[in-house]
Amino acid sequence: MPSIVIAQGGGPTAVINQTLCGAILAARRHDPSVRILGARYGVRGLTQGNVVDLTTMPEAELRRLGNTPNSALGSTRDKPDAGACSDILAALDRLGARAFVYIGGNDTAGTLELLRQQSSGDCHFVHAPKTIDNDLMENDHVPGFISAAAFVANALVSIDLDFRAMPGIYVAIVMGRHAGFLSAAAAGWQQSPDDAPHLIYTPEKPFSVVQFLDDVDAVYTRLGRCIVSMSEGVQDEAGRPLAEVLAGAAVERDAHGNLQLTGGDLGIEIQKALKSRFPKARARVDTLGYLPRGYIGVIDETDRKEAFDAGAFATQSALTGSGSVVLHYDGERIEPLLVPLDRVAGKTRHMPDDFLVGSNTVSEEGRRYFRRLLPKRPDIFLPFV
Amino acid sequence: MPSIVIAQGGGPTAVINQTLCGAILAARRHDPSVRILGARYGVRGLTQGNVVDLTTMPEAELRRLGNTPNSALGSTRDKPDAGACSDILAALDRLGARAFVYIGGNDTAGTLELLRQQSSGDCHFVHAPKTIDNDLMENDHVPGFISAAAFVANALVSIDLDFRAMPGIYVAIVMGRHAGFLSAAAAGWQQSPDDAPHLIYTPEKPFSVVQFLDDVDAVYTRLGRCIVSMSEGVQDEAGRPLAEVLAGAAVERDAHGNLQLTGGDLGIEIQKALKSRFPKARARVDTLGYLPRGYIGVIDETDRKEAFDAGAFATQSALTGSGSVVLHYDGERIEPLLVPLDRVAGKTRHMPDDFLVGSNTVSEEGRRYFRRLLPKRPDIFLPFV
Repeated sequence: MPSIVIAQGGGPTAVINQTLCGAILAARRHDPSVRILGARYGVRGLTQGNVVDLTTMPEAELRRLGNTPNSALGSTRDKPDAGACSDILAALDRLGARAFVYIGGNDTAGTLELLRQQSSGDCHFVHAPKTIDNDLMENDHVPGFISAAAFVANALVSIDLDFRAMPGIYVAIVMGRHAGFLSAAAAGWQQSPDDAPHLIYTPEKPFSVVQFLDDVDAVYTRLGRCIVSMSEGVQDEAGRPLAEVLAGAAVERDAHGNLQLTGGDLGIEIQKALKSRFPKARARVDTLGYLPRGYIGVIDETDRKEAFDAGAFATQSALTGSGSVVLHYDGERIEPLLVPLDRVAGKTRHMPDDFLVGSNTVSEEGRRYFRRLLPKRPDIFLPFV
Repeated sequence: MPSIVIAQGGGPTAVINQTLCGAILAARRHDPSVRILGARYGVRGLTQGNVVDLTTMPEAELRRLGNTPNSALGSTRDKPDAGACSDILAALDRLGARAFVYIGGNDTAGTLELLRQQSSGDCHFVHAPKTIDNDLMENDHVPGFISAAAFVANALVSIDLDFRAMPGIYVAIVMGRHAGFLSAAAAGWQQSPDDAPHLIYTPEKPFSVVQFLDDVDAVYTRLGRCIVSMSEGVQDEAGRPLAEVLAGAAVERDAHGNLQLTGGDLGIEIQKALKSRFPKARARVDTLGYLPRGYIGVIDETDRKEAFDAGAFATQSALTGSGSVVLHYDGERIEPLLVPLDRVAGKTRHMPDDFLVGSNTVSEEGRRYFRRLLPKRPDIFLPFV
């Protein structure tokens, strides 16, 4: 019996299971006789025969699944080589797969492109996008990003109020290896230059600890507080991630060559630098780390819907060919489109140059983009002045 | 003209402005002619003449104020000595204060008790409780705690799903200097021993890094993941906070003698220990830090209401005497009561002995308590097995 196989790869998001749900429901709608299979732990489930049958999963269960963050099928960061690809293709063949829908980021798209090139059958390979980093080419933005951005924006609005009540310096270390979208997103809620985040450091601009301390000094002197949003992946002038510089030779990389950053290493150095420059100030560095990427308390409605639609569009597209589903913005609406896999696979989208002014500020252009994506800013009461 | 003076002290919470609102509205109701004044930055606003008039603040503004986390009047950690108390009492006298309502924790109650003892006038001193640490004596629980606990519980449910999808070890470092309520609270959502948090370390039980690594090993071997909730204030056998042991002589204390803990210092040592014991595992330590204490995205409805009621009860009580408002639980309902200030001032409530089993597990008794306070657990879909 012909089947559609679905899997999830890479780091999770708050809405990655909406994409799974959308893919399942659209597959049922297009062909009620098709078998729908879920591979557990990404492509690893295919080679290991770890597959679940989703064909008749009740709709009520599917709704709970969709509203639950983080990859319900399990995930992997494995990067299959040519040998592993053969095994995966053989497994897909055994399962009668006419389509393999793989939900993930640019590494996941890369795996699909490898499989497509190596495949001699007529199975279609479709990538459904997800990432909190928002760093997939061809996409206006990526499912999973809005919820993560809303988490960070809520955090920084709240922290700003905390420090309006008692002076000090705060640095949030935010995930983001190569792209600073998530660190910068909270700027979309800024209504005045006095609103946090006062300083934003992203991998797109060279980072210098000395310059950072001077920047903080200027804001702290002016406002009595300074709230900073900093990407884990900030890099020095030579393009080396600061976390790597600090960690020296001990650094590790995953199978895709990605540096295994931990915000903690960076955070502790930033904390030391602040302590030495501002010995009397309340200075606090928190590593937001994994919290923004699948926090069940803050899941954005638009993000839910777009993630679902991307999954549905993926299985629909898989009827006719291979490709990567991208979210296209025509100036008014978001629409899913299919583009060739190699336009997304293994590539990284950085923030456009005009999203930043200088090394630490989001431009009005950037703010407009993030404002369009974020939910409405909470209606807060600003402290008495 | 007679006045009621209100101020906020110590660290903020998500609902501390509900208490301010409740105090203002009850004051208006009991005496429409009374002047209602807010001292900015705690008692410091009194000595510095930094006071705002809240008498005619419109109700719509008050609602926005109430729904905004973190101390809108500003806060302080100043601990007034006898001289400063004289200045504060003189300022209250000049303002015609017949009551001073101070919203805060046990240090704030201590300041009020000092003022009451030194006062020769007929001003009443009433403490309205707040703290995310939940460590005030005489209280079943304290306004601000439930929202913070809900933040942490949502975080650990989400992180658990993250690690069900990809194996590894996760440690959340959670605020809590002397009491572990906030680290332990997420246990209220556990439905099986496989649910996070798998290990909980609090200041109430001696902490040993070696034992911790053995504990993690056992869970990680059994489940392929281990999610830990650890208080910033965990202490060694000798009762020294681990953060102090690690930081050595560089440690600082505030005016109340409180150690200035930063979760980052503890986190980095825990990260190192995990890396050395489990070199191949994904191991991540995040410092939740300030996030749980005033996060606008997760404010609990019961917490809002109880905080409001505590403020209203504070100004009502202030008509007749001094004391500390406490939340009393009669087995069915929560009710505010007034107790003498010295039963709360400067004292710390720890978790009851029967809330913990061994050094790292919340007992059924403890879970029942946290379950009663927390909102309903989200209806999550557990990954396919």
